[in-house]
Amino acid sequence: MNSIPTKPKAVVLLSGGIDSATCLAVAADGGFECHAVSFDYGQRHRVELIAAGRVARQLKAVTHRTILVDLRCAGGSALTADIAVPKDRAADQPGGSSIPITYVPARNLIFLSLAIGVAEVLDARDLFIGINAVDYSGYPDCRQPFIDAFAHAANLATRAGVESTDGGGNFRIHTPLVALSKADILRLGARHGVDFSLTLSCYDPQSMGSDAAGLACGHCDSCVIRRKGFAEAGLADPTRYVMP
Amino acid sequence: MNSIPTKPKAVVLLSGGIDSATCLAVAADGGFECHAVSFDYGQRHRVELIAAGRVARQLKAVTHRTILVDLRCAGGSALTADIAVPKDRAADQPGGSSIPITYVPARNLIFLSLAIGVAEVLDARDLFIGINAVDYSGYPDCRQPFIDAFAHAANLATRAGVESTDGGGNFRIHTPLVALSKADILRLGARHGVDFSLTLSCYDPQSMGSDAAGLACGHCDSCVIRRKGFAEAGLADPTRYVMP
Repeated sequence: MNSIPTKPKAVVLLSGGIDSATCLAVAADGGFECHAVSFDYGQRHRVELIAAGRVARQLKAVTHRTILVDLRCAGGSALTADIAVPKDRAADQPGGSSIPITYVPARNLIFLSLAIGVAEVLDARDLFIGINAVDYSGYPDCRQPFIDAFAHAANLATRAGVESTDGGGNFRIHTPLVALSKADILRLGARHGVDFSLTLSCYDPQSMGSDAAGLACGHCDSCVIRRKGFAEAGLADPTRYVMP
Repeated sequence: MNSIPTKPKAVVLLSGGIDSATCLAVAADGGFECHAVSFDYGQRHRVELIAAGRVARQLKAVTHRTILVDLRCAGGSALTADIAVPKDRAADQPGGSSIPITYVPARNLIFLSLAIGVAEVLDARDLFIGINAVDYSGYPDCRQPFIDAFAHAANLATRAGVESTDGGGNFRIHTPLVALSKADILRLGARHGVDFSLTLSCYDPQSMGSDAAGLACGHCDSCVIRRKGFAEAGLADPTRYVMP
């Protein structure tokens, strides 16, 4: 008599953009039962949550939670405060010394912490986050050394870590895109069946007519990187822009 | 000509209980300009936020933020879900292997992450959190090794860490109560002028009559530890209980 094999659960951070959609597809094709988590954090591009819901459905996430966390009271970012989103900057700006104004203080630290809480309740031990070198764009919380340090802290912070049988905690944080260019990510996502027309990358989208999930501005850092990625990957760009 | 010395800023996590109030008093008397941060996270004892406001005023915090973060969608705890709060358990239960149902998954990980975001925006480098061995009560995220690991991750996650001149990041997380018993904490807080009648520790308080901040149940883990602490410290207990 065979027992039905159960898939291990994974919590996947899902913003509704290209990277997190690809990350979800990779996790699902890797044999995980995927639980998507999005964040309603006061972002000006809040319509990305609609895109996240479309992506979660297309890629058959088993559950999709949106966690409310108000990062506006900290302020300090063009993505949450009343500061203009920069437009038409070069796509290949260096990271490190130049952290852009769209940086949200401690965002991935906060999002991963909330995802760990969800993972603990679901009894999941695997998390997926779609950070990568290009999307880094100077964001310090998109680098592997941070992820490794965070996983260590999370294993010391939680019941799952304390009670793990191997004594060293057992959350695993997967970063399948960390070493990929945007073009590589697009090719990988396409191979795993991501419908990129459902995704939204823009930091400053406009909701117009029937497209409740927003049209992309085409000029913010995120749009510039996305356009360049489709061109380099040799894929048709299905993005709907306000001004083509 | 003398310049006016400015105090360094500190972010202090403030729940409205004995420990965080004492922690705030210690930080203020230590010469810091204190910015208190509380969390509205769906806790059943949400009236503790009223106590936190009273404590912040009494101890002259310069600002007091309450950050909205909904931990109910993760669930899994008697403090946020529809699970009964245990009553009349022994105050000196061991930590480690027995983590109580009032444990909120990854709570201090999440709260510290949000506090780091506030610190980064305020340009503060010092954080204070009132964790301690007794209040641990089996909570894994109240131990010093977790705090040390978290500080390391936070320094890798943030602009402040990346841009620090010493290259190693420079957030400092102070845990002045970590090695103290509840009685020691009460004596320390009393020395620093904390008015404990303003604080609320109860996990299951009742709002009655004119006391909007709630009367303590007297029987949950937190009340049991608090009562024992006042007795051991030889201090009068100013707590108002539902049933004395």
